[in-house]
Amino acid sequence: MLHIPALEKLVHELSRLPGIGPKTAQRLAYHILKSKDSFSTQLSEAIQRVQSEVHTCMSCFNYTDRVTCRYCEDSHRNNELLCLVEEPSDIERIESSGAFRGRYHVLHGSISPLEGITAKDLKIPELMTKIDQGIHGDRPQIREVIFAFDADLEGDTTALYLTKVLQGKELKISRIAHGIPMGSDIDFIDDRTMGRALENRVQL
Amino acid sequence: MLHIPALEKLVHELSRLPGIGPKTAQRLAYHILKSKDSFSTQLSEAIQRVQSEVHTCMSCFNYTDRVTCRYCEDSHRNNELLCLVEEPSDIERIESSGAFRGRYHVLHGSISPLEGITAKDLKIPELMTKIDQGIHGDRPQIREVIFAFDADLEGDTTALYLTKVLQGKELKISRIAHGIPMGSDIDFIDDRTMGRALENRVQL
Repeated sequence: MLHIPALEKLVHELSRLPGIGPKTAQRLAYHILKSKDSFSTQLSEAIQRVQSEVHTCMSCFNYTDRVTCRYCEDSHRNNELLCLVEEPSDIERIESSGAFRGRYHVLHGSISPLEGITAKDLKIPELMTKIDQGIHGDRPQIREVIFAFDADLEGDTTALYLTKVLQGKELKISRIAHGIPMGSDIDFIDDRTMGRALENRVQL
Repeated sequence: MLHIPALEKLVHELSRLPGIGPKTAQRLAYHILKSKDSFSTQLSEAIQRVQSEVHTCMSCFNYTDRVTCRYCEDSHRNNELLCLVEEPSDIERIESSGAFRGRYHVLHGSISPLEGITAKDLKIPELMTKIDQGIHGDRPQIREVIFAFDADLEGDTTALYLTKVLQGKELKISRIAHGIPMGSDIDFIDDRTMGRALENRVQL
């Protein structure tokens, strides 16, 4: 209880952010209050600006401030490879690896019966259209769909559902590998990861 | 590199908050973007409102949205006891213990030669006036000054400086105790804390 409505309101709003508990929210609010006016102005303007300028790409549903995003606009990418991700932030993760030069499609979530998120809440109809008509809507050309979903129950469910839905299409379907992370010590790997790493072993 | 100026700007502003690294800032920015417009509007308004409505109490320099803060306005508090703190947030910490019913004075920082913060950057002249003239400026009445500073180099330096400055005044000067935190296991106490706990042992 801070007994100052404006301060309590700010703490409340900040604590709605992911990973920010009430204690951290209070610390952040005091920091904002202590800092010069220019910082809070810039922060609040940046929040408003991102909501007014940034929206989803009309083709792949990545975030962009143009009509289509930079990956859709890039004419040097392989139109035969389509990588499915749950969130736009996943694209940045994949891009920074430099290991993929195909196209993306963002589902904006994953199937979660627990949270009541079903296939129709995701960008799956748009995915089907894309697969039927090709990246630029002119002809079918996608040869492989790669699932880059989180390694959790929701990711597994979404992969299972999409595998079923895409059956019958002339497509190779793959999922990014699960296994021992690079640079890690075998001693510290959990049982499920080790199980998967053994199951998916690669012949040399 | 997110390649969307509005998004990069928001990540930059968020990463200026304490304890928020670039990775966390990016996660928060994506969350703000994903959430409904109403959340970002409320968050940015809360930031602006706190800066326009909240300022320091003219008496103790705690934060308030009135002329004087609730602790200064409370007529049931002991005017003979003055607790000095570094930051307004320290007051909430002390109040929630319920162990203090005197008055407060916020220095807004601590003496730190490393960061170039000297006594004249703090609310020390105002403290001297308060000690000479009393809480309500009508007569000298403060009998004890309690230092509730952080248990670090800056807190020690500030305590040392103020002890010197307040010498000669008819005042009892004290500092909140350092020792083993309640409920903690002796095994896990660091050497400096244990040293201080032994040094400041209390006779039973």
